Amino acid sequence: MALKKAGVLGATGSVGQRFILLLSQHPEFEIHALGASPRSAGKQYKDAVTWKQTELLPESAQSVIVQECKPEGAFQECDIVFSGLDADYAGEIEKAFVEAGLAVVSNAKNYRREPTVPLVVPIVNPEHIDVVEKKLNDAKAAGEKKPGFIICISNCSTAGLVAPLKPLVEAFGPIDALTATTLQAISGAGFSPGVSGMDILDNIVPYIGGEEDKLEWETKKILGGVNVAGTEFTPIPDSDMKVSAQCNRVPVIDGHTECISLRFANRPPPSVEQVKKALSDYQCTASKLGCHSAPKQTIHVLEQQDRPQPRLDRERDRGYAVSVGRVREDPVLDFKMVVLSHNTIIGAAGAGILIAEILKAIL
Amino acid sequence: MALKKAGVLGATGSVGQRFILLLSQHPEFEIHALGASPRSAGKQYKDAVTWKQTELLPESAQSVIVQECKPEGAFQECDIVFSGLDADYAGEIEKAFVEAGLAVVSNAKNYRREPTVPLVVPIVNPEHIDVVEKKLNDAKAAGEKKPGFIICISNCSTAGLVAPLKPLVEAFGPIDALTATTLQAISGAGFSPGVSGMDILDNIVPYIGGEEDKLEWETKKILGGVNVAGTEFTPIPDSDMKVSAQCNRVPVIDGHTECISLRFANRPPPSVEQVKKALSDYQCTASKLGCHSAPKQTIHVLEQQDRPQPRLDRERDRGYAVSVGRVREDPVLDFKMVVLSHNTIIGAAGAGILIAEILKAIL
Amino acid sequence: MALKKAGVLGATGSVGQRFILLLSQHPEFEIHALGASPRSAGKQYKDAVTWKQTELLPESAQSVIVQECKPEGAFQECDIVFSGLDADYAGEIEKAFVEAGLAVVSNAKNYRREPTVPLVVPIVNPEHIDVVEKKLNDAKAAGEKKPGFIICISNCSTAGLVAPLKPLVEAFGPIDALTATTLQAISGAGFSPGVSGMDILDNIVPYIGGEEDKLEWETKKILGGVNVAGTEFTPIPDSDMKVSAQCNRVPVIDGHTECISLRFANRPPPSVEQVKKALSDYQCTASKLGCHSAPKQTIHVLEQQDRPQPRLDRERDRGYAVSVGRVREDPVLDFKMVVLSHNTIIGAAGAGILIAEILKAIL
Amino acid sequence: MALKKAGVLGATGSVGQRFILLLSQHPEFEIHALGASPRSAGKQYKDAVTWKQTELLPESAQSVIVQECKPEGAFQECDIVFSGLDADYAGEIEKAFVEAGLAVVSNAKNYRREPTVPLVVPIVNPEHIDVVEKKLNDAKAAGEKKPGFIICISNCSTAGLVAPLKPLVEAFGPIDALTATTLQAISGAGFSPGVSGMDILDNIVPYIGGEEDKLEWETKKILGGVNVAGTEFTPIPDSDMKVSAQCNRVPVIDGHTECISLRFANRPPPSVEQVKKALSDYQCTASKLGCHSAPKQTIHVLEQQDRPQPRLDRERDRGYAVSVGRVREDPVLDFKMVVLSHNTIIGAAGAGILIAEILKAIL
Repeated sequence: MALKKAGVLGATGSVGQRFILLLSQHPEFEIHALGASPRSAGKQYKDAVTWKQTELLPESAQSVIVQECKPEGAFQECDIVFSGLDADYAGEIEKAFVEAGLAVVSNAKNYRREPTVPLVVPIVNPEHIDVVEKKLNDAKAAGEKKPGFIICISNCSTAGLVAPLKPLVEAFGPIDALTATTLQAISGAGFSPGVSGMDILDNIVPYIGGEEDKLEWETKKILGGVNVAGTEFTPIPDSDMKVSAQCNRVPVIDGHTECISLRFANRPPPSVEQVKKALSDYQCTASKLGCHSAPKQTIHVLEQQDRPQPRLDRERDRGYAVSVGRVREDPVLDFKMVVLSHNTIIGAAGAGILIAEILKAIL
Repeated sequence: MALKKAGVLGATGSVGQRFILLLSQHPEFEIHALGASPRSAGKQYKDAVTWKQTELLPESAQSVIVQECKPEGAFQECDIVFSGLDADYAGEIEKAFVEAGLAVVSNAKNYRREPTVPLVVPIVNPEHIDVVEKKLNDAKAAGEKKPGFIICISNCSTAGLVAPLKPLVEAFGPIDALTATTLQAISGAGFSPGVSGMDILDNIVPYIGGEEDKLEWETKKILGGVNVAGTEFTPIPDSDMKVSAQCNRVPVIDGHTECISLRFANRPPPSVEQVKKALSDYQCTASKLGCHSAPKQTIHVLEQQDRPQPRLDRERDRGYAVSVGRVREDPVLDFKMVVLSHNTIIGAAGAGILIAEILKAIL
Repeated sequence: MALKKAGVLGATGSVGQRFILLLSQHPEFEIHALGASPRSAGKQYKDAVTWKQTELLPESAQSVIVQECKPEGAFQECDIVFSGLDADYAGEIEKAFVEAGLAVVSNAKNYRREPTVPLVVPIVNPEHIDVVEKKLNDAKAAGEKKPGFIICISNCSTAGLVAPLKPLVEAFGPIDALTATTLQAISGAGFSPGVSGMDILDNIVPYIGGEEDKLEWETKKILGGVNVAGTEFTPIPDSDMKVSAQCNRVPVIDGHTECISLRFANRPPPSVEQVKKALSDYQCTASKLGCHSAPKQTIHVLEQQDRPQPRLDRERDRGYAVSVGRVREDPVLDFKMVVLSHNTIIGAAGAGILIAEILKAIL
Repeated sequence: MALKKAGVLGATGSVGQRFILLLSQHPEFEIHALGASPRSAGKQYKDAVTWKQTELLPESAQSVIVQECKPEGAFQECDIVFSGLDADYAGEIEKAFVEAGLAVVSNAKNYRREPTVPLVVPIVNPEHIDVVEKKLNDAKAAGEKKPGFIICISNCSTAGLVAPLKPLVEAFGPIDALTATTLQAISGAGFSPGVSGMDILDNIVPYIGGEEDKLEWETKKILGGVNVAGTEFTPIPDSDMKVSAQCNRVPVIDGHTECISLRFANRPPPSVEQVKKALSDYQCTASKLGCHSAPKQTIHVLEQQDRPQPRLDRERDRGYAVSVGRVREDPVLDFKMVVLSHNTIIGAAGAGILIAEILKAIL
């Protein structure tokens, strides 16, 4: 089977580097085009990048000539384009790629709230991709050229949050109140400059710009539905689900810890054991489909009282699984628990790869 | 005015060291007796202790001969005895000291839940000391010998939590629901061994043994009342105030950060501005009394969106004040905010000293 | 080919856990016996251990019944026994195992200075194992029972230091002066309690008990020779090679960084380029032998001026390689450079496994 | 006595902030002019600065109107101007200030190597200021206008290094070989962006641009002499003193640790006890002069084997003293020891203040 040609936008940035690392080890994709700023364009990738990953710069990327981020040249031959662009640039560039008929999976926030754009956590709501599939089918039926499209990866802290919510809603019905206090790793902020060492050594920063709003809003789109026509997303209304986030940056390299509590709309609520079972039993669609990167166990329910911990648990199922611990009753809402997810894998580049694996059939 | 003679139990431990540091710089107390394990007894303090403070071991403590923790010798001459004992030893030793007629201010958890023992955060509920004063007065009126007594310092994370709650309850009536997710510094766990470096570097530990229960229970006693006879404490019943805590250990040396949200019983709730004003306007009794260590401003309301931060804000008013930031509406309860307190000052030894200053009149 | 049966002494400790992890993934060994304290004996391993690795407890070890550390039961059937025992216990226990005819590879310091015991860094001096092989052959020739023996793994900081020295000595002759200032990771101290968080957060501890002496002494044995009879080791005399170490503990999880400088006895010394080439060209015997765990490239010479860095470079060749950067002339001695090695792999358990792979032919 | 009027260049930067903090608490100086970029000029200081100190922004600075960094307006009335400018700007701006007749004490590197400019560590070589005093006296004698001048503060890691060297050279004669491996705190790199959190959490960076050269070169100027005319500095020639530095950035907020070893030119060398005594007995000139900020004890010789440690010892004598521990013989050179200094106090802004105190008589 021929490898799918993959492009990466924002290839020298921290998300771009992780896309390249994951693609270089992937059996179904090959790196075909790398895009970065005009300053980097024309150089070999190894000369353009300040590589800051714990694994070596893959050979397959080293001598790729970096292009500008335009839907030209090698990008036009790509089956899929992953975008690790900063929000400052993503808006226009991604739009141009879609208009050029390309399939874009983006980590940027710019189009997440577009009603027609799927916002996907691949272990949670891959069915939202159907809206794109329908669009492609409709175009095909109409004899039109295959249109470009964009699928957005969620915010990193959202991904960890919605993973346990999905099976709970499936098993026990709607959640009408949810609070999440996050302890987020610094890799989520990139590294040039990212979080300053002076801000994070022996310290906590109880604020991440825009993060709480993203967490609160994206959760309702991801857990929400689609209109009757199958063309637009219909987030859960605020009146049906109250979500409150408090986001903190902590001195951890990788892995977002989230202390959450939630209340079900239906009374009486399930038992703690029922909640744990629903989480443990959950098998995500990507896993059922046998996607290459899908976690073997989607949600690891940990019984040790002091887990999950980011340093020890973030790599479970190569970072594609989510760990949940300390499931217990909550005196204010119904249940509280601790959720850990790998922010650069299931919360960013890894999610993009897994989305692409799910997409592959329709590329 | 003669200096009050102070004793310290558990003098070589981390809390004991901080009592000694604060006493050595205090204009109203002098170090008179130091108690530690039989292994240390008989040695000069400087030879018995592994001093781990950022300030030098005070000269006034260096050559004090360490005693065993028995109400004998120099301890019998003490006007007040501060206990930094571990819970494993505090129960029996503190009991013996009280029975010997001594005034004990303890950082241990053992007697916090005794109905007749005040559990005091000195910037919050110094009026709970009245129960002791009444006991002394009653004994005096009855011609009895002055009885010993114990006053408990609250758990460190409780202290930070209740500080903003007190003025809010005074201004706006009862709080009926409260959630607190804590990010607690490692100094709260002492240092032999305390929190292991392997557990806390590049990591979060989402569990502190017994802490959540302490936070939930102590809050209700501290904000609660006293029976009609003025002899016993009556914590707020669970049915009137639901409290839910999630406690985490984070890689911070000093300063507990707490992300809290709360709902008032009365409708409609106040505005954000009214909440901030009530916090800013609050002047604690210790401050009104002109106590030496009392904070000038009890609660610092910070307007910068990324504050309070432990490294930058923990030393405000020498650690006796509490900082509150990010006061805003909460979609689930009424308000959310971030609270920072210095766990070894207002959350431990410093609280003991401030309690003693308030007590001084009745010693 | 039948798997070699492996035992692990001190199986619940930090070094023991890493032996188990490496053995569980190894194609040539199987876990056959696990030894720990009497308190753990009789339990399934998963119930006896507080597993603190970033990878999950391997299935092959979970239900092994832990034994006491005596050369009995399953241990007697072992082809090789790895010891992760603390020095307090290693002396007697390892002696008993050797006397029972077992082959022991030990991480403990107890027998490293024995004249007849090989002290081996497998990427540096595997030829020291010949002394053991000769002993076995002599016994065989004499018709005696196969004798037990012990091979010692070097101190972790020694391993990183001698790796670049070996090819330099081979290429340019003796080194007569060597200084090494180390910045050592905390995993080298284990985790119960290991290094306290209060000692290592926002801090450096410029002292590690016994470490400097180990570094200075072991280097001379490892780079030294064997007597004419081939039975005893002859460390380089102090008069021929002056070694000075300054050892520091730093807030790093894994990976020892060492700033070294050295002077060759021969004049004139080589050029910087010759030094780098000798390091790059070095291929260790384990690699030539095709040992399973041997690094592909023994020494990685890095050209970026700010490398090696522990977080980014410690995993090169799965931690079995050593990285060297900033090779430059030294105004006081001849050359200075920065050496990075993974203290728990090539500096401890991994070294033991690689020694065992080299040994395999004679087991 | 009238307060001396002080100006601060680069007032919003990290060094500038520390100058302001120290000046605001100083009994002899008052903040009179603050200079920053054109972007900040015209604003009140509190609105121009992102204040990142652990103490609150002093009231005396809050409403000062920030000027551009030109020798105009309030700057012209300053008795002394402290420069915390980045090297990119310091060259031209400081030159303009000197030409305008102002007295400048600069933390920038630009003029450190000028033969006529004193490079001063105030606890080490305040006598180098005589060159300036002579210049002022000569001008006065010639009936000329009082000339401007500049005095340079040394590099932060140099300050800690030369502090113990000075008394040793005074007592035992020249040092002919010196090695220093530094473990430097991140505050030395400022905070916008300074050292990235991703570079320094769970990591060491074994390189600081230009630092090793500064350490090697500045040491020879500071310990060197003055020409016969008393007008130019004559650094120790390389042939007389070999200095080799290896500089590392470590995850520590404040406090540079340096592992040094040294050899005296004279044989036989002194004993360890003699070395310690020379260090302990040393009283710097600033202290003899009774300067306000001078340390009571210039060098603290610590006997505990695991000290000095940055978190515990950096604040000794408010950061104006230097701590030395682990003094012992060195197998390669004569002695080795660990030196700790507070990089933002005696290594930067504090040094500037202490220089100004010494200068005061001639301002």
